Amino acid sequence: MSIAVNVLLRLKLENQPGMLAQVLSIIAAHEGHPGSIDLVSASTTHVIRELMVRLHDSRAFERLLAELRETPGVQVIRVADRVFLRHVGGKIEVRSRCPVANREDLSLIYTPGVGAISELIAREPDMAFPLTMKGNAIAIVTDGSAVLGLGDLGPAAALPVMEGKAVLFKRFAGINAVPICLDVHEPQAIIDAVRAIAPAFGGINLEDIAAPKCFEIEQRLSEILDIPVFHDDQHGTAIVTLAGLLNALKVVGKELAQARIVIAGAGAAGMAITAMLLKAGATDLIVCDRKGAISRDEGPSQPSKRWIAEHTNAGCVKGPLKKVVAGADVFIGVSGPGVLDRADVETMAARPVIFALANPEPEIEPETVHDIAGVIATGRSDYPNQINNALAFPGIFRGALDCHARTISDEMSLAAAYALAGLVPEEELSAEHIIPSIFHEEVASVVARAVVEVARRTGVARPTPHGPGEE
Amino acid sequence: MSIAVNVLLRLKLENQPGMLAQVLSIIAAHEGHPGSIDLVSASTTHVIRELMVRLHDSRAFERLLAELRETPGVQVIRVADRVFLRHVGGKIEVRSRCPVANREDLSLIYTPGVGAISELIAREPDMAFPLTMKGNAIAIVTDGSAVLGLGDLGPAAALPVMEGKAVLFKRFAGINAVPICLDVHEPQAIIDAVRAIAPAFGGINLEDIAAPKCFEIEQRLSEILDIPVFHDDQHGTAIVTLAGLLNALKVVGKELAQARIVIAGAGAAGMAITAMLLKAGATDLIVCDRKGAISRDEGPSQPSKRWIAEHTNAGCVKGPLKKVVAGADVFIGVSGPGVLDRADVETMAARPVIFALANPEPEIEPETVHDIAGVIATGRSDYPNQINNALAFPGIFRGALDCHARTISDEMSLAAAYALAGLVPEEELSAEHIIPSIFHEEVASVVARAVVEVARRTGVARPTPHGPGEE
Repeated sequence: MSIAVNVLLRLKLENQPGMLAQVLSIIAAHEGHPGSIDLVSASTTHVIRELMVRLHDSRAFERLLAELRETPGVQVIRVADRVFLRHVGGKIEVRSRCPVANREDLSLIYTPGVGAISELIAREPDMAFPLTMKGNAIAIVTDGSAVLGLGDLGPAAALPVMEGKAVLFKRFAGINAVPICLDVHEPQAIIDAVRAIAPAFGGINLEDIAAPKCFEIEQRLSEILDIPVFHDDQHGTAIVTLAGLLNALKVVGKELAQARIVIAGAGAAGMAITAMLLKAGATDLIVCDRKGAISRDEGPSQPSKRWIAEHTNAGCVKGPLKKVVAGADVFIGVSGPGVLDRADVETMAARPVIFALANPEPEIEPETVHDIAGVIATGRSDYPNQINNALAFPGIFRGALDCHARTISDEMSLAAAYALAGLVPEEELSAEHIIPSIFHEEVASVVARAVVEVARRTGVARPTPHGPGEE
Repeated sequence: MSIAVNVLLRLKLENQPGMLAQVLSIIAAHEGHPGSIDLVSASTTHVIRELMVRLHDSRAFERLLAELRETPGVQVIRVADRVFLRHVGGKIEVRSRCPVANREDLSLIYTPGVGAISELIAREPDMAFPLTMKGNAIAIVTDGSAVLGLGDLGPAAALPVMEGKAVLFKRFAGINAVPICLDVHEPQAIIDAVRAIAPAFGGINLEDIAAPKCFEIEQRLSEILDIPVFHDDQHGTAIVTLAGLLNALKVVGKELAQARIVIAGAGAAGMAITAMLLKAGATDLIVCDRKGAISRDEGPSQPSKRWIAEHTNAGCVKGPLKKVVAGADVFIGVSGPGVLDRADVETMAARPVIFALANPEPEIEPETVHDIAGVIATGRSDYPNQINNALAFPGIFRGALDCHARTISDEMSLAAAYALAGLVPEEELSAEHIIPSIFHEEVASVVARAVVEVARRTGVARPTPHGPGEE
């Protein structure tokens, strides 16, 4: 699969008639599309120009660059692509919410005024929610061990992803999210670090931490801390998958409780999707890892796979994914590209639901089965039905923060999934519209309301504290 | 000492002629000054008003409140003071620096675009400086063990102070500062936590961590990390103290190398001031703790006091502060209120320099000695010559970040002190003007330039990395 490249080229051209036209024809020869063309400076001998150019892929870009460098009268001064440009200086900043114009402002927000607020919080710890960042801030914590689909790149390399996530938290739910990239990798060291930094935050979003250690880390932190701990790669994915599946099954006229569901991938996402579908009422589930169907009579040693074995595949079906998928109503892939082909989908039940969520390359290219599948969803934005975590995590945390939740329970996650599914009205449901767009203005607020309602009903929410002297 | 109180009162008054006048006369009877008076709502029977009132101290406020509550026709609905109001919702927020208007924006700042930035940083770790928050972000780290002068209030209670500090970092130096309030208290646990969270930050500002553990923590972290670690309670105070002292000695016509200097307080600030004055050329220094002068022939057991004993008080002077201060040219107090009185100052050398820096109550009230002291400075904003850390830490970190410094060396700190002192032109120097105002627009940039110059000259700065493809 090729990914289009947008680059900004700064060129120094001899100041002669026809130079720019020559450059543009070279770009055209490489099937590049020029965007804005700026004149940076000009002298009698030279002109410096910046051109935005879109190319099919990075190889085309390299060929273009090589040719430009060999062209007489053209000097390539600088190259930067658009992704690079968006990252210069980082993607987030810490801003003050208070003016500091004079000494009086200082005395109110810093010493000596702030001392009274510190003493109040020391006496009444819950006052940290209304009077500090804690009430609207979460930490996005990673050790960089599973960055996107790229693997163990380490904490510094994970930072741009965490910043991107912080941008989304702010954009979609108004939440102040702080990237915490941990340079420790043992589960206990990660647990210790998160526990240590917890006091300033109203919630912890675990991100891009590899399975299976992610399970232990989330579970232990949830037990230790009195704020929600939520591993988005697990539960965010599971919530949006369930929401999409509920609507997809309506489109094809099937019931969750009766559907045969095959899941490819037993990592963080596969595990969480399995648990969530079971909670939602699915009964006929088979999960495959690289070795094939996970089955209880083979007793897998890894605790998460043992849990899967004990709770799915009642008939102890065995064999590779390509065999297991025969007759299934639903395929959910959270594995890697190319594990399924058209011939496999042809063995599935009529109008099968195909969720090929591996990113950026799905388990099966939608084009190859769109005539035989009932519904197709992917993790990508360039196909219909994008199963995107950003539909869930902003609203989930918005709700949890709004009610000072101590945890994000399974019931809250289920409520979020149902609320999300409900955002596509029955009359608008179709094979190409099972899930709302992430730019649907109401997504986060609808999810948040559902989460708050369940949190209050189930006693997970804290009573909201009053200000001192309020009556 | 009384601290004025500003409160916002929301009152429900019977809708009768003269009610507001009656309330205002009650306020006047308690020597309160009314500020803005808002009409919130009115019905035929009642009027709800909000009044801002300034009172001498909190006891006056309590008496006023009691009287209002007993006044027929007056109902106190809510009370909030101005400090409280400034803190509602926290004082800082995380903001996005990039627009997210459509899917293309998302693809540039998040998946799939961000993957290329992560891979680049994995290959070239220093690219995290230009392409993530790291290049302009620091962590303000505390365990809440020495919050202002209030003591061990714990990490959550320290958060409003850390947020205030983050506001100052942004206001005075454009730095993104993130409060990290640690719920661990053993030195090794604090070291482990800071080491773990370091990858996202270009520097670490340690804050409000009690002595003596602060010394060990700073030293170990400086050894472990390749970014600056700076305990502001030590070095920020020392830098501004030295800057003020350099100018104060000019005013009274004495030389640092010859001056007899007595320091009261051997905690974080006293230790750092001692070390810095020695670096700057002071030779005759005596440090007193609660037990009196620290002397090498008594062999203190605590390592920081042993260091002081070995490097000061060559004559092994003994006795309490009040005795030791006799004949001294300079008194620097970083201890507590009331350790010195007029009679003690009368025993000092002619035109003594008095830095009474305990906050909010200085070692000696300036009013009591202003006729016999050569120069007086305090830590307070309501006297001339405020020795305020905010004169140093923004510029210090601005400089360190600008040159990607690996550490903040003694030479950089000294350069900062000299730069700061130089901001008051010789012709403007006077007993009441030895240090610039923190609202002097050039403070941070002048300090930063001095820091960068030394860092580059001494090899502490990193070479600034280029963007990919830059030529």
